[in-house]
Amino acid sequence: MASISYLKKTRNDDVGIKMSIARLKLSLAEIAKLVQGEIRGDDQIEICGVAPFEEASGQDISLAGEAKFLKRIGESKAGALIVPMTCDADDGNLVLVENPRAAFAKVMAHFHPQAKPSDVVSDKAHIGEHVSMGGNVQICPFASIGNHVTIGNRVIIHTGVVLGDGVTVGDDVVMEPNVVIMERCCIGNRVLIHAGTVIGSDGYGFAPEGEQYLKIPQTGNVVIGNDVEIGANNTIDRATFGSTRIGNGVKTDNLVHVAHNVTVGDHTLLIGQTGIAGSATIGKHTILAGQTAVAPHITIGDHVMVGPQSGIAKSIPDNQVVTGSPGMPHKTFLKVQRIIQNLPDLRKRLLGLEKKLKQLDHLQKG
Amino acid sequence: MASISYLKKTRNDDVGIKMSIARLKLSLAEIAKLVQGEIRGDDQIEICGVAPFEEASGQDISLAGEAKFLKRIGESKAGALIVPMTCDADDGNLVLVENPRAAFAKVMAHFHPQAKPSDVVSDKAHIGEHVSMGGNVQICPFASIGNHVTIGNRVIIHTGVVLGDGVTVGDDVVMEPNVVIMERCCIGNRVLIHAGTVIGSDGYGFAPEGEQYLKIPQTGNVVIGNDVEIGANNTIDRATFGSTRIGNGVKTDNLVHVAHNVTVGDHTLLIGQTGIAGSATIGKHTILAGQTAVAPHITIGDHVMVGPQSGIAKSIPDNQVVTGSPGMPHKTFLKVQRIIQNLPDLRKRLLGLEKKLKQLDHLQKG
Amino acid sequence: MASISYLKKTRNDDVGIKMSIARLKLSLAEIAKLVQGEIRGDDQIEICGVAPFEEASGQDISLAGEAKFLKRIGESKAGALIVPMTCDADDGNLVLVENPRAAFAKVMAHFHPQAKPSDVVSDKAHIGEHVSMGGNVQICPFASIGNHVTIGNRVIIHTGVVLGDGVTVGDDVVMEPNVVIMERCCIGNRVLIHAGTVIGSDGYGFAPEGEQYLKIPQTGNVVIGNDVEIGANNTIDRATFGSTRIGNGVKTDNLVHVAHNVTVGDHTLLIGQTGIAGSATIGKHTILAGQTAVAPHITIGDHVMVGPQSGIAKSIPDNQVVTGSPGMPHKTFLKVQRIIQNLPDLRKRLLGLEKKLKQLDHLQKG
Repeated sequence: MASISYLKKTRNDDVGIKMSIARLKLSLAEIAKLVQGEIRGDDQIEICGVAPFEEASGQDISLAGEAKFLKRIGESKAGALIVPMTCDADDGNLVLVENPRAAFAKVMAHFHPQAKPSDVVSDKAHIGEHVSMGGNVQICPFASIGNHVTIGNRVIIHTGVVLGDGVTVGDDVVMEPNVVIMERCCIGNRVLIHAGTVIGSDGYGFAPEGEQYLKIPQTGNVVIGNDVEIGANNTIDRATFGSTRIGNGVKTDNLVHVAHNVTVGDHTLLIGQTGIAGSATIGKHTILAGQTAVAPHITIGDHVMVGPQSGIAKSIPDNQVVTGSPGMPHKTFLKVQRIIQNLPDLRKRLLGLEKKLKQLDHLQKG
Repeated sequence: MASISYLKKTRNDDVGIKMSIARLKLSLAEIAKLVQGEIRGDDQIEICGVAPFEEASGQDISLAGEAKFLKRIGESKAGALIVPMTCDADDGNLVLVENPRAAFAKVMAHFHPQAKPSDVVSDKAHIGEHVSMGGNVQICPFASIGNHVTIGNRVIIHTGVVLGDGVTVGDDVVMEPNVVIMERCCIGNRVLIHAGTVIGSDGYGFAPEGEQYLKIPQTGNVVIGNDVEIGANNTIDRATFGSTRIGNGVKTDNLVHVAHNVTVGDHTLLIGQTGIAGSATIGKHTILAGQTAVAPHITIGDHVMVGPQSGIAKSIPDNQVVTGSPGMPHKTFLKVQRIIQNLPDLRKRLLGLEKKLKQLDHLQKG
Repeated sequence: MASISYLKKTRNDDVGIKMSIARLKLSLAEIAKLVQGEIRGDDQIEICGVAPFEEASGQDISLAGEAKFLKRIGESKAGALIVPMTCDADDGNLVLVENPRAAFAKVMAHFHPQAKPSDVVSDKAHIGEHVSMGGNVQICPFASIGNHVTIGNRVIIHTGVVLGDGVTVGDDVVMEPNVVIMERCCIGNRVLIHAGTVIGSDGYGFAPEGEQYLKIPQTGNVVIGNDVEIGANNTIDRATFGSTRIGNGVKTDNLVHVAHNVTVGDHTLLIGQTGIAGSATIGKHTILAGQTAVAPHITIGDHVMVGPQSGIAKSIPDNQVVTGSPGMPHKTFLKVQRIIQNLPDLRKRLLGLEKKLKQLDHLQKG
């Protein structure tokens, strides 16, 4: 029943943790410059952090991008607010911008910068042979770097990450704990991969022979572009031949499944629990909402929006808004949804019509 | 081709493994006391284990909670049976209780107690700085405890678990292998987290700007209450601001996704592969069945039951039973399901009516 | 800002990586023997690899199994093509076989053989007590082998894999990084388990008592047969009593969930993100397509095909083809899908009929 205490808990603990959330004062003038905005109010007020509209205090900047908050600007206790250019309020300190949400993201990024790599390779990590690393690479305990791996500059490989043989990793990459990148996969620059994600597992390819299925070796890899963020516990399979490709700027949510030989175009969003079957092609600037399934070998165009829980079995041209299983134009889907709930009533009315018509028919003949 | 054998396989192996399943004799009188039940039959019979109805032998206690087993009490070879108070059988040894399933759970928990922490911190684990641990903490090889982490009493941190900086863990917690708790998340008392689960990954928040998406830093954390069980390979995202909250007594199944800023109320069940989108609020004592999707920003009330594969896009008040995509009252859903399969017939009848009416109309005018 | 370089990147790197993809020349006669095929053309041509139809060069063999490729045989630059027996082309070098896809899988397996275990137990791995290992077992860094574990011959346990106490593993097994096999589970021969998968997590079993849920201890295990492949980030729960069973030759895709006490029959396929609820029984040679949900306690027969995103709430006899939620005969499903998209039109026509009938009725009475 011994108590192992590496450190008595002291007030220093709290200090230490708070320190990890960087706080860097900016004047409102500096913030306006950062977001290319215009100031209405006091441009010398000092801002120490960001907070949501309801919780912001006098040292915080907050966001009133939507009508529901714009109406309540007077109620805010924030030191300053980021608002759209069209805002005509004249109380408080305002930063007017074209794109309030993007401006807020930039200010948040200033006050909560990404952790910097420590330039320490833990002696509890495993480093294979013929590994090449750039500058400022941090490798945490129990990470395992295979043979012939190339890692760029300013990369953080967190605890328990496994990089297979021949993997290449670009600059400014962060791999959260227990990420697995299987052999020969390529990761671009400025990529963030969340914990538990597996990249480069074998594609699901089998050839039936008699009672059995023969494995079709999956000899390709996965290539991930620049500025990509992959959510937690994703699975992205390697191609049978060639590469499964995740374009630049793609963002995936958690528990997303991308099968072998899929191509996901630049700046496309895959929302939680979406699954894309083998050899499907997803265009650029497209959004697949949560729990959507995409059939194998089809093509979804650019600038397509697919609603949640959709089952997309046929190719979709560019610029469509599609929802449902089967996928249909979103407007049709909304009508169909209303009707589906009323099917018992419609059926009753149909039966009523049949009865009435039979009576009429009888009268007619009678 | 050498054979590495750390131990010749002997009969001791089996003994060793069986030992790990604790067996602790109880008289039926002691069991009755444990579950606050009444005995009909021999209260001195010794019970050495629990088993399902069909497989129980004379040293086992089993459960006959449902009608299908109650009818067959005479067939059972179990040493004793747990039955509902309403049972009027008089053969065999019976323990009569108000809640047979709960009583059975208690007896099982006696014969299969949770493993006790060994009070050993493996020298193959990584322990950060300023870590505070209570008594009887077991930390297994290749677990990594970050800086400024606080761990309570009687905690088991299994192999490959990663606790980020500033994490706090309560008493009597078990984290199964390869669980990841990201920085500053808080885990309550008596929490069991199954293998591969990620808690505190970044919420999925981006602001579109031109062709790109800017990351909105996710500065909050995840707070998990007491008596919670989280399934395997779950993903629970940290809040943008504040906390994603999992209430007391919540139980999640495997592959469940909880997005940022979600609140899950006390004693709510999230069944396998369910996904909850950002800022949704789920009430208390609510059940979301498997593969359900919940839209962002909506509220599901207390004591709500949502059926499997539902797509809940609108808020649901307390005490509703809802199924389907779109969600509808469960009774409506059952009717709709029947009709959907008959749509081809209904369509045919509608076309028939149209034809007939045209004929009638023609006759009328003729 | 130091640059840590374990090795200057040299041309040797590429060589090293390419070496890992084995290349072993075969004459076309040898290939024909391997796949029990007949040759039309030059049986002495040397083949050095496999490639897709469009990309194959003169040293590659490729596949023209389907009509779309058979029509274009003349265009192929491949050194040889595997074609069906029925092919009557007489240009190029052809290997005629009964089952072109299976033959291609065999040729690929020759040119891309599975990695051989290195017979090295890393000194960075953790090996428990009373562990028995066969010959040629490779255990990578940060893998953890529990107590009383038995491992067969020619097994690769990759980095970060955790085998719980009492686990048994057969011959020729590969466990990819960060796989977790919980205590007392049994893995057969020739099993490949992809990264991040959890086998033997607790089944989701709770007994409501008052406001709370009591945990029902999950005392069983998972038994996995021979020739099984389990995808990445799967979760397969242990049984409450007895075993959750995965039959011989089963192949699961990624993010598949199998609950406690489920039985999956031999040579059955579970496609991506499918979930099977507790105590369901799935037959042999059955296919559950992606994102399908199976309700608890039901039985799906042998040789059943279930389409994608289906919700199977009722048992299905052998040899059925079922799709949809609710599951219905696939032919009905296809009709229903077409009608669902036209529901707004059908509703309109129904309303039109009602109106017309009212008019007729009025005329009649008038």
